[in-house]
Amino acid sequence: MAGKRAKVRLFVDAELGPGQAVPLSRDAAHYLFGVMRLEADDLVALFNGRDGEWTARVVSVGKRKGILVCVQQSAPQTLPPDLWLVFAPVKKARTDFIVEKATEMGVRRILPVQTRFTNSDRFRVERQQAHAIEAAEQCGATHAPTIEPLQPLDRLLGDWPAGRRLLFCDEALAGTSATPKDASDAQQWAILIGPEGGFSPDERQSLRQMPDVMTTSLGPRILRADTAAVAALALWQSRWGDWR
Amino acid sequence: MAGKRAKVRLFVDAELGPGQAVPLSRDAAHYLFGVMRLEADDLVALFNGRDGEWTARVVSVGKRKGILVCVQQSAPQTLPPDLWLVFAPVKKARTDFIVEKATEMGVRRILPVQTRFTNSDRFRVERQQAHAIEAAEQCGATHAPTIEPLQPLDRLLGDWPAGRRLLFCDEALAGTSATPKDASDAQQWAILIGPEGGFSPDERQSLRQMPDVMTTSLGPRILRADTAAVAALALWQSRWGDWR
Repeated sequence: MAGKRAKVRLFVDAELGPGQAVPLSRDAAHYLFGVMRLEADDLVALFNGRDGEWTARVVSVGKRKGILVCVQQSAPQTLPPDLWLVFAPVKKARTDFIVEKATEMGVRRILPVQTRFTNSDRFRVERQQAHAIEAAEQCGATHAPTIEPLQPLDRLLGDWPAGRRLLFCDEALAGTSATPKDASDAQQWAILIGPEGGFSPDERQSLRQMPDVMTTSLGPRILRADTAAVAALALWQSRWGDWR
Repeated sequence: MAGKRAKVRLFVDAELGPGQAVPLSRDAAHYLFGVMRLEADDLVALFNGRDGEWTARVVSVGKRKGILVCVQQSAPQTLPPDLWLVFAPVKKARTDFIVEKATEMGVRRILPVQTRFTNSDRFRVERQQAHAIEAAEQCGATHAPTIEPLQPLDRLLGDWPAGRRLLFCDEALAGTSATPKDASDAQQWAILIGPEGGFSPDERQSLRQMPDVMTTSLGPRILRADTAAVAALALWQSRWGDWR
């Protein structure tokens, strides 16, 4: 292996471990051999969200199939903090962007919600799951967030797990100086980003009545939903997450 | 004016003040009357980066021209903190995104630089200036950042103004816990985001030798340049900027 490095990083849905053989899906084989032009003996970095990152060697090349064998672990399994991102889907390109960015910034679950003023009712779970996996492959994470189906905000809040803090980024606070000063030792968190039309008065009231909610402002300018998501994740990670 | 609100927010390059007439450019007239279908007596919110935001009334409608008259000031002039964003252009969509996001997050100047491993040498200043103005119109700012032409990083660093702090987001620190702990009363700042290929060893050395540089990590995952820009701006604004 001297001098050789894995040129491709790939998420797989298979066990990884010493000497473990990894059969490739049709799509993965097409990507590795058709698109990236890998050959036998080339190295690939694999992760599955459980076993860390493994360097694996190509042992069998086919048009729609192939086999890799794990050589050695190249990074331990790490998980992002137990943080969820809850957001109202926006236009397709900006929703894609939010999923990609949340993966890079480090979240465990992404939960799209329908709100009173949600800009879009379309959210394709499988497509977005693939998008999150691609972002994880790119950013060196050994874990990709789980993408949940679209659900009504009031149902999610009604079933809210006890003890999970909710950081509510309230665009109605733009221009005020409210910041989340309440240092907390909570281990479970979620960040809620509203739709571009804002929350309705009764949604805002339900949120403010929740026991574990904290409200924050994201500065004096009105941020688009995708900007707000990245900004809130950066603040959270630097205050309470794995950027400390 | 009772009950009427400005439906459109527009940046203009004209004086704004009580009773001031504002002649529209060809493009602005087309946008207001052709696209947004405004008519005489409709209200528009105007800003020029100097005189705050003014509510103005349409007094003359033409195909390629028109006149508004300022009615009253609706917001005072505010400037974002004296912060520059210095970044290496990436693919077009992501460069557009960086300019849009930097405007929303609040910067005074945007300075694209060519580095050893810059991914793109194309940067269209006029197009990006228009893009920043559009973002300012959207986000309620009364100021749009100035977009500078592409210049070599070493020239910018060679002429670096004394006393302006440079926050250097070093992707080589990903996975370490370096954070900018040095609380500072500096009033002038810049944030530097590297190209996706990273900085070269000699670029990194020049940067580290600058008197006013501070280095920071943006967490354990590798962020794309556009994600890094928004994340760094959020951290800066919440620590030293106008989100405090």
